[in-house]
Amino acid sequence: MITQVAAPDHTRDRLLAAGMQLFAAKGYQSTSVADLLQYANAHSGSFYHFFPTKQDLLLAVLQAYRDGIESMLLAPAWDGIDDPIAKVFALLAVYRGALDGSGCLYGCPIGSLALEIHEPDPPVRELLSANFSGWVRHIQSCLDAARHRLPRAIDTHQLAVFVLTTMEGGVMQARTHRSLAAFDASVASLQDYFSRLHAAASEESQPC
Amino acid sequence: MITQVAAPDHTRDRLLAAGMQLFAAKGYQSTSVADLLQYANAHSGSFYHFFPTKQDLLLAVLQAYRDGIESMLLAPAWDGIDDPIAKVFALLAVYRGALDGSGCLYGCPIGSLALEIHEPDPPVRELLSANFSGWVRHIQSCLDAARHRLPRAIDTHQLAVFVLTTMEGGVMQARTHRSLAAFDASVASLQDYFSRLHAAASEESQPC
Repeated sequence: MITQVAAPDHTRDRLLAAGMQLFAAKGYQSTSVADLLQYANAHSGSFYHFFPTKQDLLLAVLQAYRDGIESMLLAPAWDGIDDPIAKVFALLAVYRGALDGSGCLYGCPIGSLALEIHEPDPPVRELLSANFSGWVRHIQSCLDAARHRLPRAIDTHQLAVFVLTTMEGGVMQARTHRSLAAFDASVASLQDYFSRLHAAASEESQPC
Repeated sequence: MITQVAAPDHTRDRLLAAGMQLFAAKGYQSTSVADLLQYANAHSGSFYHFFPTKQDLLLAVLQAYRDGIESMLLAPAWDGIDDPIAKVFALLAVYRGALDGSGCLYGCPIGSLALEIHEPDPPVRELLSANFSGWVRHIQSCLDAARHRLPRAIDTHQLAVFVLTTMEGGVMQARTHRSLAAFDASVASLQDYFSRLHAAASEESQPC
């Protein structure tokens, strides 16, 4: 998920913003406490007051992503968009924008952390999992709102998972190739799939 | 990509096998030279003789995955399977097997390394990219062999990229949730897409 936090006044917020920015840009393991202190313009005493370990900051970052998905990610992505299927693709476009704006260096911080940390401690893994689940739940709500435009046999939860799969798999390849082509190919295939689902739903709704 | 190397007799091969195993299981950054020496039953002098740095071993590992895709990955996955679309899903099943056999800890080593190493040196990134490109090329060959079972408007390269996207996005979620459900949901959606493509191709081939 992608988020911006407004310039924060408080040290804890500045450290949280530093974690969000640096863990996404450099990776968790490559980010030192010194990097975080410099970015946040904070002293180590403050850091360890709020976050006894770097992992405690990671947990706070993942909680912020989880709790901020509506305000920080979905609300800006869906501003002015009412159509629920358009919302799905508008959200994918946010990730494309992040890739495009970073020379394909920056994609989804949750996906990066999920694969960077090979054997995360249980609370870290649970928060990564909760972030994915929250994202899927919001996409599923869009699909449920467009239920009549999908064939009856389609499981909207399964399809919502597939939308996240498309985003994460596309971001991974775009970052690796340093090119948007694989992300665009993936989203184009998903769009083709949705077009065929819509056509099938229309046929189902025709009188015999 | 998933590979097994036979018990190697030579120190360089043992170190290469250690790199393949440990970078996939523990991650690149978390694997120390001492871990590699212990796994390979080798001395540090041998290591630095063959690989001046740990990154040189990583490069050799990525070259081995790239060069071994047919012998180590595709040949066992496709043994006894002639149908080109069945080959696509048989390859996805190999990754499912790897997840299932590891409690969803182990997926695709290329995907893990691609996201673990945030800003890889150019030769590392190029080899990661070459591994993805090789995988996609083999899948595209399957799709081209089944060209008559796909609608004419389908771009088989784009669809092959989407197959890799499905695998990588599904593996990422399965590892994060420690459950096969998201992988299975993604592959089921891809199968549904392929079914609809086949049906559309059949309609195209009907005489008007």
